[in-house]
Amino acid sequence: MTVHLVGAGPGDAGLLTRRGADLLARADVVVHDRLVSPDVLGLARAGARLVDVGKTPGGADTQAAINALLVTLAREHDCVVRLKGGDPFVFGRGGEEVEALRRADVSVEVVPGVSAVFSGPALAGVPVTHRGLASGVTVVTATGEGGVATDFTRLANPSTTMVVLMGVARRWRIARDLVAGGLDPTTPVVIIERASTDSQRTVRCDLAGLAGVEISSPAVMVIGAVAGLDLGLIASPAGARAGWA
Amino acid sequence: MTVHLVGAGPGDAGLLTRRGADLLARADVVVHDRLVSPDVLGLARAGARLVDVGKTPGGADTQAAINALLVTLAREHDCVVRLKGGDPFVFGRGGEEVEALRRADVSVEVVPGVSAVFSGPALAGVPVTHRGLASGVTVVTATGEGGVATDFTRLANPSTTMVVLMGVARRWRIARDLVAGGLDPTTPVVIIERASTDSQRTVRCDLAGLAGVEISSPAVMVIGAVAGLDLGLIASPAGARAGWA
Repeated sequence: MTVHLVGAGPGDAGLLTRRGADLLARADVVVHDRLVSPDVLGLARAGARLVDVGKTPGGADTQAAINALLVTLAREHDCVVRLKGGDPFVFGRGGEEVEALRRADVSVEVVPGVSAVFSGPALAGVPVTHRGLASGVTVVTATGEGGVATDFTRLANPSTTMVVLMGVARRWRIARDLVAGGLDPTTPVVIIERASTDSQRTVRCDLAGLAGVEISSPAVMVIGAVAGLDLGLIASPAGARAGWA
Repeated sequence: MTVHLVGAGPGDAGLLTRRGADLLARADVVVHDRLVSPDVLGLARAGARLVDVGKTPGGADTQAAINALLVTLAREHDCVVRLKGGDPFVFGRGGEEVEALRRADVSVEVVPGVSAVFSGPALAGVPVTHRGLASGVTVVTATGEGGVATDFTRLANPSTTMVVLMGVARRWRIARDLVAGGLDPTTPVVIIERASTDSQRTVRCDLAGLAGVEISSPAVMVIGAVAGLDLGLIASPAGARAGWA
């Protein structure tokens, strides 16, 4: 009994790993989150059962139900793929699912994916590290354990790039607290919505203007000097986005 | 004229993206770093010219020479792939190469890769974020701009996972400074050498013992409560590591 825990990448089917694609092509069941793109799901074996477990916001009860479902499916099928957006262990709660499966004596293979933390900015022409601008990266969500707000005043650091996931709704507070912590209000910010999909959209502002921009989830927010860069990249061809073969 | 800047992932050819593999299969020239694995290079088109630019440590002169080489090759060939270990924009100086290419009016497509920052720990059974243990991740190298040592005393934060790249030679100082900054000497540390390759090796210790362990580059170092976890994963099959089809 094995569950293959696979990172789906940011959306573009061309950014799925070869190992991930191979497992999808053999899967009996694919248990996936809401954030996994139709393009990636389209690579699943014809006839594979697709189970969307991302329809309700993930509370503890929901996570427990997902864990139990994975154990049940592992006992019924040869090839169960648990597909998570981005990378399963980067704010993906993959660790909790692995622990539940191991307790039930189910083997787990992990197949890391391309995380939106780095690829979202990259596809918008923003390198998270860049000579003279940033020597490190801090990655956080706006809300931590049990809904407690992340303390952004303590995280303000002008020599480090900050990447915020799940921060759209709290962007007013994030900007206020980073400025209170010492960041310049003119610090550049770039927000990448739906990175790598056909509807990818990039919004640029500064910390002072962050509260006022119109953005929607899912989005990756980059705060720091690198956010002022635009390397002027060309987009990958459409073939890489849908049904790439 | 286009250069395709492709992240090779951590080493396992199964962890290359589908888009990256497609470009390698069409490449006229592949310009690669020392860290790119033979398995990934084996996916290049038969007859493609492979140029290793990673033999000498990367100083400014070397980087300038690589930039100039890429411009020249872009003018001579239809499909030039610049292949970098991990992800090109995560401490990979990919941004500098893009800037040089754009100045020479060469188009650049970026294909993000699976970064060793997250995949190295994952493949050793360590999730960089985990409920109750870490609500964020800070990624740094031991040495920043112009050889200046990163100030680890300022980065000490018990609620955040720290991932250090290129830190093997300076592990004594890293441990000393993190303890001086307030981290407990018993804070768990895990070092993953050559992640995802057949010679992957995991070493576990704590901050107090970090100076004394035998480790070699390239390695990813994880410091924080999550480093004490071992999720007990099974390895991907050998087929995923060499010549996966």
